[in-house]
Amino acid sequence: MAKEFKPKARLPRGLVDRTGAELSATRAMLEKIRAVYELYGFEALETPAFEYTDALGKFLPDLDRPNEGVFSLKDDDEQWLSLRYDLTAPLARYVAEHFEQLPKPYRSYRAGYVFRNEKPGPGRFRQFMQFDADTVGAPSVAADAEICMMAADTLEAVGVPRGAYVVRVNNRKVLDGVMEAIGLGGDENFGRRLTVLRAIDKFDKFGVEGVELLLGPGRRDESGDFTKGAGLNQRQSAVVLAMLTGKGLRATDVGVEVELDGDVELAAALASNSAFLEGMAELRDIAALVGAAGYEDRVKIDPSVVRGLEYYTGPVYEAELTFEIKDEDGRPVRFGSVAGGGRYDGLVARFRGEKVPATGFSIGVSRLLAALAFLGKMEAAPEVGPVVVLVMDKEPHRLADYMKMVADLRANGIRAEMYLGGGGMKPQMKYADRRGAPAVIIQGSNEKSAGEVQIKDLVEGAKIAASIADNAEYRAARPAQFAVKEADLVAAIRDVLERRAAPTLGLAD
Amino acid sequence: MAKEFKPKARLPRGLVDRTGAELSATRAMLEKIRAVYELYGFEALETPAFEYTDALGKFLPDLDRPNEGVFSLKDDDEQWLSLRYDLTAPLARYVAEHFEQLPKPYRSYRAGYVFRNEKPGPGRFRQFMQFDADTVGAPSVAADAEICMMAADTLEAVGVPRGAYVVRVNNRKVLDGVMEAIGLGGDENFGRRLTVLRAIDKFDKFGVEGVELLLGPGRRDESGDFTKGAGLNQRQSAVVLAMLTGKGLRATDVGVEVELDGDVELAAALASNSAFLEGMAELRDIAALVGAAGYEDRVKIDPSVVRGLEYYTGPVYEAELTFEIKDEDGRPVRFGSVAGGGRYDGLVARFRGEKVPATGFSIGVSRLLAALAFLGKMEAAPEVGPVVVLVMDKEPHRLADYMKMVADLRANGIRAEMYLGGGGMKPQMKYADRRGAPAVIIQGSNEKSAGEVQIKDLVEGAKIAASIADNAEYRAARPAQFAVKEADLVAAIRDVLERRAAPTLGLAD
Repeated sequence: MAKEFKPKARLPRGLVDRTGAELSATRAMLEKIRAVYELYGFEALETPAFEYTDALGKFLPDLDRPNEGVFSLKDDDEQWLSLRYDLTAPLARYVAEHFEQLPKPYRSYRAGYVFRNEKPGPGRFRQFMQFDADTVGAPSVAADAEICMMAADTLEAVGVPRGAYVVRVNNRKVLDGVMEAIGLGGDENFGRRLTVLRAIDKFDKFGVEGVELLLGPGRRDESGDFTKGAGLNQRQSAVVLAMLTGKGLRATDVGVEVELDGDVELAAALASNSAFLEGMAELRDIAALVGAAGYEDRVKIDPSVVRGLEYYTGPVYEAELTFEIKDEDGRPVRFGSVAGGGRYDGLVARFRGEKVPATGFSIGVSRLLAALAFLGKMEAAPEVGPVVVLVMDKEPHRLADYMKMVADLRANGIRAEMYLGGGGMKPQMKYADRRGAPAVIIQGSNEKSAGEVQIKDLVEGAKIAASIADNAEYRAARPAQFAVKEADLVAAIRDVLERRAAPTLGLAD
Repeated sequence: MAKEFKPKARLPRGLVDRTGAELSATRAMLEKIRAVYELYGFEALETPAFEYTDALGKFLPDLDRPNEGVFSLKDDDEQWLSLRYDLTAPLARYVAEHFEQLPKPYRSYRAGYVFRNEKPGPGRFRQFMQFDADTVGAPSVAADAEICMMAADTLEAVGVPRGAYVVRVNNRKVLDGVMEAIGLGGDENFGRRLTVLRAIDKFDKFGVEGVELLLGPGRRDESGDFTKGAGLNQRQSAVVLAMLTGKGLRATDVGVEVELDGDVELAAALASNSAFLEGMAELRDIAALVGAAGYEDRVKIDPSVVRGLEYYTGPVYEAELTFEIKDEDGRPVRFGSVAGGGRYDGLVARFRGEKVPATGFSIGVSRLLAALAFLGKMEAAPEVGPVVVLVMDKEPHRLADYMKMVADLRANGIRAEMYLGGGGMKPQMKYADRRGAPAVIIQGSNEKSAGEVQIKDLVEGAKIAASIADNAEYRAARPAQFAVKEADLVAAIRDVLERRAAPTLGLAD
């Protein structure tokens, strides 16, 4: 250890420290989410931050860099470990490991930090918290419908008003079916399918015309930047747009009728595609269940939902906040997604060979908290600072006196401390002010010999300072500094705290 | 991604999954710890899991492998990152980074996982949680005394009875002074000092004779294993033992009188050693403060406390649980340490150059929880399973009926779910049983056409099964299965829940 080396105090990029108000608001929000998940019958699970790299697999959306995105290191025994990049892959490992012992379906919820070795950006960190709920072992789309409704209930429980969000549902099978119908099935078309999915994902933002350009030759935005298109021909694009808009599609009891302007061939290909039909049938069932439970205005089928993660195999869903905020350039944009998920029937199968149906969703905790802050619904704990006992005399027996006062206050549930820094009256008062102390307690030698303490009410003091005109009046009615007998200290401080508008912490109860 | 590759579902060694009861007990315990820290005026802080490796420094106790113990990896920009191995080094970085903006003294508390790349063992994990509190910027040992008293209050708050624990306090300066007095000062004696400290650390376990052997030639234990000693001569050992036992030491107003049998030279060396005298004076002041606050039976000076971490510079302390448990071989041993800490005046200085006094302590969360479990004080949340609505008919409109029942129950704050798995009555009842469901709800086509549901009270059902003799009587008084009108479902389930001894979750309130 080089004693002379002086490191710089700084954090690696994409990582942040969090303090008081944000932490207490997060804690309050997590408790509300947890209460909803519990109500829905889900059970707590916590997996460690590390997994074997092979157990996590690689399913991150950033497909331009398929080997990136994960923090990995070699263990002593030469095996590769990775920090989890989500809470779904570790759940799949847990379920596969304990499959025989778990009740099935297994309903699990998990909150915790995940890590992505990606380029950080505004609001985009390399460590962030997710709060997930998953149902494993339920093949029915009733499980997906339930999770979508739970997402809605959760958003309302934390304070997002009804009408300010929508849970949008789509189905990967529908997307897969469309791809197959237009000849983009198979591994060899993987890259092109991805470009098409990205185009579909922009439907909300750019509408039919914009998506048509992105599906075809490409699109130039207002700033002149060009996004290369998927190169579909007009016939292929028409199928994708039909799916997106629903125009030309008509659900029947036995399937879906497809009508494309004059294109009988592709219409028939789509109308007979089994993945497409299965996906559409599942969406219809989800809509029926959601409607029966009275969630039809909150959970909506939306063919433009894509979701980035590779492991989804059926319904996918996204909880979007619909109110507007300003983007980086000051333009109004929707707040957007705060949670999302979908069905991943193949993830547990990676370990077990046999297929195990599973569906789940994940809340981005920081992002949802940011939304609550924007809505003015962020619940911060009452920021009542501690009562500060000033140190007027540093003799050990006098320090012991002050310590005793603090111990008495704490024993009565009053947040309190003795000033432990250096310096005289001025830094002590400055400290009390910075900590938001409701009062300071002063006992110099005069007060000590009189068996008294001085209490300075800092809230009243601030009021007095703010309204000099009433000074004399205030001082007469409720003086900001007063003496009480030592034995009356706790009662007097209680009075001061009760005079405050904000409630005390009430930790004694 | 090789689709054929089948990874094994397992965790890397030294890592664990945690589930329901342990998680809820941990959550309850953390809340109680937090309430005490808040009462003492500490403020929440959370730092990320990663830091720059150079910012963390290397202070782990495992000095046989000074470069081990930490999980590290290289960032994209070739800088080394490490996962934090404790919550103190990151605090030092945070304070150094934000020094001007923080109130001073700065009282901080932090809870979170830390990571050690060490050999795991029973109860020894590579990821574990700590809950720390630190006071930075307080040079006075009043800060140390306060933290020791807070440790005592915290243990009682979580359920450790008074008398079942002791907070033992020592001072690194005393140990340093003794080392200097016996000629073991200086970098060149680093290794030997360590062996002496390890011997001192065994005082509790082996007593004077055992420590004397470990200070001298070495000690052979009952099993025949030999531990090499520090090789001190008899005169040197006598000084260490005098410190440990207090024999021959007498505190005076101006310092400490030292009397060693006939060894005037070493007695004088110790009695005039400034580190030793400073350390002893600090311990005296701590004892005075602790006594004045009425904690003298809970916080005790104990010269055998060593503490492993390298960064301590003054008082060190350890919260020990004094009741006995059985060790691996079935022999009674003290439960031992659950928390510890000390003063580390040099840690912030690493970044800033100037010395910044600081002291703090850390609770081993899992270890304390294990102690509470042993004491029967582990608070587990009421394990009330969900009410399970059985699926008697899988037609979509019937699923919608069941879903509606579940939604009604949840809207009334009752934990409930529809069975989402496959199979008939038997797996459904087995599932309800495994989930600890208080009741199941059954609606086949007959009940549906009658506008009714069947409720099966599983708690009563279990009682009936357990006392077959009373069967007829029980069934008459309070039948385990009964029909109610659909409209009365919620009220009927409420009755069932109220009949249970355990309270409901009451999530609706």
